[in-house]
Amino acid sequence: MANKRITVIGGGTGVYVVLSALKNCGYDLSAVISMCDDGGSTGRLRDDYGILPPGDIRRSLIALSSANIQLRKLFEHRFVGGEIDGHSFGNLFLAACQQLTGSNLKEAVKLASEVLSVRGRVIPATLDNVRLAAKLENGKTIIGETNIDIPQHNPELKIVDVFTVPHASVNPEATKIIAKSDVIIIGPGDLYTSVVPNLLMRGMARSIRTSSAIKIYVCNLMTKNGETNSYGMRDLLATIDRYLGERTIDYALVNSKKPSIQRLVKYSKENSKFVSLNKKYNGSSEIIKSNLIADRGLIRHDLKKLRLALVKLIER
Amino acid sequence: MANKRITVIGGGTGVYVVLSALKNCGYDLSAVISMCDDGGSTGRLRDDYGILPPGDIRRSLIALSSANIQLRKLFEHRFVGGEIDGHSFGNLFLAACQQLTGSNLKEAVKLASEVLSVRGRVIPATLDNVRLAAKLENGKTIIGETNIDIPQHNPELKIVDVFTVPHASVNPEATKIIAKSDVIIIGPGDLYTSVVPNLLMRGMARSIRTSSAIKIYVCNLMTKNGETNSYGMRDLLATIDRYLGERTIDYALVNSKKPSIQRLVKYSKENSKFVSLNKKYNGSSEIIKSNLIADRGLIRHDLKKLRLALVKLIER
Repeated sequence: MANKRITVIGGGTGVYVVLSALKNCGYDLSAVISMCDDGGSTGRLRDDYGILPPGDIRRSLIALSSANIQLRKLFEHRFVGGEIDGHSFGNLFLAACQQLTGSNLKEAVKLASEVLSVRGRVIPATLDNVRLAAKLENGKTIIGETNIDIPQHNPELKIVDVFTVPHASVNPEATKIIAKSDVIIIGPGDLYTSVVPNLLMRGMARSIRTSSAIKIYVCNLMTKNGETNSYGMRDLLATIDRYLGERTIDYALVNSKKPSIQRLVKYSKENSKFVSLNKKYNGSSEIIKSNLIADRGLIRHDLKKLRLALVKLIER
Repeated sequence: MANKRITVIGGGTGVYVVLSALKNCGYDLSAVISMCDDGGSTGRLRDDYGILPPGDIRRSLIALSSANIQLRKLFEHRFVGGEIDGHSFGNLFLAACQQLTGSNLKEAVKLASEVLSVRGRVIPATLDNVRLAAKLENGKTIIGETNIDIPQHNPELKIVDVFTVPHASVNPEATKIIAKSDVIIIGPGDLYTSVVPNLLMRGMARSIRTSSAIKIYVCNLMTKNGETNSYGMRDLLATIDRYLGERTIDYALVNSKKPSIQRLVKYSKENSKFVSLNKKYNGSSEIIKSNLIADRGLIRHDLKKLRLALVKLIER
């Protein structure tokens, strides 16, 4: 099963999870990463130095790193207190690299990949400097990924559209790798702030549609307050279809195991609910149901279960 | 001439110059570095995170690095503006490593050495957290390396003694490498703030005296305002003798070529003068006079001339 070319598209921790699950399976892994993050350490570095967002790139680099554990931990290390409070070292690395290379994120990622002995490649979805914006059902527009992510709006208001300011073009390196892929995996991850932003890059959706790769969407486990309140599996998938084009996703990998009420309690405080299966699904994707969640603790994908389910689809 | 074990002792740019001169000569190079720096980026990181000073360690690591030029440049890169203004990336690397390893500078240097493909070793003179203090001829004491270095006192007042607060012990790794050295090179560098601080570490002077290595002192080219005003070669050497013990230095490598008056003009503004040869020298060291300065620009050691002069002594 070695050497199949797999491209994972998303952002945040979602891509990290899929890359970690498929690492060491002998696949040729690439990650295409959303470039809309503007919160926390990443946001401060963008504001201060006009660089492209390093945070999600950093996570993917670490996921694909075969360097020793200390070096990987170093890239995740966050300064606490003092002038550099809250900055992750890996973000500072990518920021310094970008400054050194004259804002060349590609060169910065290359240098970081060397230092971290990355197996595979991490590709920014765009090399344009953009901000994410969301239009709500009340007609208001919110600018900024973080403002959508940590809702500054009434979280029950539905998002009717997301777009970037300004419009941005897909990174040609991303379309190249997508065209050559055997399998494309989209998600999991925050729908409007991590996954869909990739599909907004001009040329991205078309390049995915026209690729002969098998296309898999990994469905989220829980809803996100202010983004996907009351969304079921069908709504998530319909949104992907909308931004990607219908009949593109071949398989939707959906968790079938409902966690215990005890585990759901702490999520209800954050207004986050279990993503229901929506019995009536009329789309074209084949729904693959499988127990995918970790047996205890936070409700997240279990790496081993996710690996097994994905490998089964990849090797179909 | 391969594989002679050479240990360079100092701090600041002095060690960087000697290491750069002797790099690629096939020697087994070690650097023992003063740990009293408390200015600039280094000082802010010490204040904020209680770490040991990274700046001079960083310079030596870069000097001994065989990594690609971009990575070496990255370690020297300084952020300009924003929250991280003035911090060098290499300092942040060493700061993060120290935090990650529970304030273990040895582990931090090891990790940085791996990343930078360092050939040789960089050894902090002490692992104790100390501040440098200077007693002036008027009886006043100045605390802090930077306060001595960028004089807060009447710069014509002579320094009568330097010491650390608290007293500190030599790093055992340093005494081990000194004992096994074939050649020990001390200086050049700011006398009281870069070179002598090493000799203040309890056990350091004795370990140098008792080592069977050839001991060379590389004399400074220019005086330093507030530190060595009106010092000649003899005064520099007498100070080294005083902190190290007389009859320890075998050879003092002294520049014999006076730079043009034009080149000296800009130094006179900083109250910095050419170090005179002091004809009457009664000490036990053999004075080796040689043209060591760069032919133009700043008055500094020419790497090639310094290499030739040092290799001649090393291979004597």
